[in-house]
Amino acid sequence: MSLLRSWVAAANAADTDFPLNNLPYGVFSDATRGPRCGVAIGDRILDMAALEAAGLLRLGDMPLFAEPGWNTLMAQGPAVWGALRTQLIALLAEGAAERVAVEPHLVPMAGAQLHLPFRVTGYTDFYASRQHAFNVGTMFRGAENALPPNWLHIPIGYNGRASSVVVSGTDVRRPWGQVKGPEDAAPRFAPSARFDIELELGAIVGTGSSDPLTVAEADAMIFGYVLLNDWSARDIQAWEYQPLGPFQGKATATTISPWIVTAAALEPFRAHGPAREKPLLPYLDEPGPMLYDIDLEVGLTPEGGAESVISRTSYREMYYSAAQQLAHHSTAGCRMDVGDLLGTGTISGPDKGSFGSLLELSWGGKEPLTLADGAQRSFVEDGDTLILRGQCRGDGYRIGFGDCSGTVIPAFEDPYRRS
Amino acid sequence: MSLLRSWVAAANAADTDFPLNNLPYGVFSDATRGPRCGVAIGDRILDMAALEAAGLLRLGDMPLFAEPGWNTLMAQGPAVWGALRTQLIALLAEGAAERVAVEPHLVPMAGAQLHLPFRVTGYTDFYASRQHAFNVGTMFRGAENALPPNWLHIPIGYNGRASSVVVSGTDVRRPWGQVKGPEDAAPRFAPSARFDIELELGAIVGTGSSDPLTVAEADAMIFGYVLLNDWSARDIQAWEYQPLGPFQGKATATTISPWIVTAAALEPFRAHGPAREKPLLPYLDEPGPMLYDIDLEVGLTPEGGAESVISRTSYREMYYSAAQQLAHHSTAGCRMDVGDLLGTGTISGPDKGSFGSLLELSWGGKEPLTLADGAQRSFVEDGDTLILRGQCRGDGYRIGFGDCSGTVIPAFEDPYRRS
Repeated sequence: MSLLRSWVAAANAADTDFPLNNLPYGVFSDATRGPRCGVAIGDRILDMAALEAAGLLRLGDMPLFAEPGWNTLMAQGPAVWGALRTQLIALLAEGAAERVAVEPHLVPMAGAQLHLPFRVTGYTDFYASRQHAFNVGTMFRGAENALPPNWLHIPIGYNGRASSVVVSGTDVRRPWGQVKGPEDAAPRFAPSARFDIELELGAIVGTGSSDPLTVAEADAMIFGYVLLNDWSARDIQAWEYQPLGPFQGKATATTISPWIVTAAALEPFRAHGPAREKPLLPYLDEPGPMLYDIDLEVGLTPEGGAESVISRTSYREMYYSAAQQLAHHSTAGCRMDVGDLLGTGTISGPDKGSFGSLLELSWGGKEPLTLADGAQRSFVEDGDTLILRGQCRGDGYRIGFGDCSGTVIPAFEDPYRRS
Repeated sequence: MSLLRSWVAAANAADTDFPLNNLPYGVFSDATRGPRCGVAIGDRILDMAALEAAGLLRLGDMPLFAEPGWNTLMAQGPAVWGALRTQLIALLAEGAAERVAVEPHLVPMAGAQLHLPFRVTGYTDFYASRQHAFNVGTMFRGAENALPPNWLHIPIGYNGRASSVVVSGTDVRRPWGQVKGPEDAAPRFAPSARFDIELELGAIVGTGSSDPLTVAEADAMIFGYVLLNDWSARDIQAWEYQPLGPFQGKATATTISPWIVTAAALEPFRAHGPAREKPLLPYLDEPGPMLYDIDLEVGLTPEGGAESVISRTSYREMYYSAAQQLAHHSTAGCRMDVGDLLGTGTISGPDKGSFGSLLELSWGGKEPLTLADGAQRSFVEDGDTLILRGQCRGDGYRIGFGDCSGTVIPAFEDPYRRS
């Protein structure tokens, strides 16, 4: 597919994340008004509340943009999602007759603050990159037990904490927690010394369900995707995770990028996953290519320093797709809701430069990374800013996700005497 | 404490769950109107929306009862919780001058349908009864590895699925899932053959927080308690739970009793927990007795048969209190929200008749229970109705929770061809 040209000039630049082909959905505020829904186009944001109020949309059960979140639109279902995209493309296309009516509702992106694009109803995190599972399994349980026996059969996942999801740009405070190192006689309560990132994609469930879903049904329910950094305190996690899984090690924050890149925008970039090492049970059968060709990278910038790109990988490294994860999630009759967020799990490629966490990049701290300015990193240090980026490369355009960024601030000196 | 007498005659009976001392909070509907907040008193429900509309309450930022759920009231905080209870006791006490004004807002409990009493924001389940952890650990990992090394230091918990929480009386459909028995060469997709209950109490977080909480702060944030049955598919759980914990094995349903018994009503029944086998870290120190003396039991009624009480135990069997669980939950900066539900984990006493799950009662199916009518049970069978009950015994009265009931209906013949 090639570039769709827009009358918003900046949307036609080869280096924009937000051409007319993309049209991702967010929530923004500016000096004039509080949070409301918006669509990114070039260097502008189209104010959806204003557009709807002006009578420029013809869609479902309006108003759809009275609330500062995309949940109401999502709940309308795929037919309305498609109609909205069609109408937006028509309104913003080069030569559109509606330009005069629409242009007053464009706001400069530069002065806008971005908020969580949707109300996160539930948050589930998976563990679906084979290389990541192998790497972490090797470090936690040894190479011979690296891949659990169920891993090639089940998209392993666990319920995360929806309240911990924050938007890009939110500072992340280093957590305290209960830790016990191999040399400690007893556990201690201390700030995490092994605070880490996880490079993930998040799939957003756009319609609800109560019964088991096929992979095709699940795929049709996914509204869009965001970048997702699942901040992880490895020392807290290591001591707590047996037998019921990660808990406070994953409860500090999960940062998502501010723009929902829709499944419709990603459609031209569908890609097959890897060959199956063991046959999957039929309920996980894929009706077609269920991944997308999305390039991913992680930048680390120390306080006052220069950025180093510490990882480059691809969403194609996933062994299980988001649609398979959602299908599996529904098997036991688990109700899925509008606004559920499903993290892919850390996405790691086959070689060291493509691992999606510092745990893997520094091999548990044994092989620290050297950054551009010569500093070393085993885990995240206070003041570090971590940015995830993602893009699909089209013919003369790209579909960008926008930055998924967070800066780590120091732990409380005493978490119980904060004043 | 002795019975507080009410002008609602049935509230003074020795065998009611709902004397004036209790005043639990629910949501009900009847032939006249849809769901609204109500308070149980004897054999009646006081319609809170009507009471508020009639101008009989003087509280915080009214209206507090416009929505069919107690979240709005909870968000007002402990001072308003206390004021409401004081006003309700005054309005309903024997000799109250307001009787004539209040009486029209009483609805017979017999004709009412009960709904979820609050909007469940997040659901976390713990693993905090020592005997239960020992029993399950023995079955899953052997007696020598029964209690994980962290268990005596951490209130182990995991995030559950808020969308799976249903109110007492909701049928529970046996789930399908991926299972693999020790003799299976490969996993199968099948209805669960080891479907089970878990006898728990649920604590309801009544005010929000973002920073780590002391146990005293956590205790003051708990609005009340419900009975909780965390339905569990043991065969699904056993195959999926390594390394990230239970997922679809716990996703089918979690049934709660329809009445929130407030912390204020339980206050006279505060009790100390067991002696600590190892010292806890200071952040888990208890400022006083943090458990309650609540008797618990489980009844099992086969379809068309008679009930057998299969377990009798007590909330005093908990090694960690709900306040300690909430304090631990907040350590890493995890935001806690109004309406978060914290399950205690299965409550098992020291001997077999006091175990809180069929897994333990039948010792993994090896020692089936014999029911009153001679039938045997290793796990729950289709048509079985399971009822949890709980009460505190006061001087001439009791604080009852009301039934927490669910009937198991057969699995779909084919979960993907439901029509």
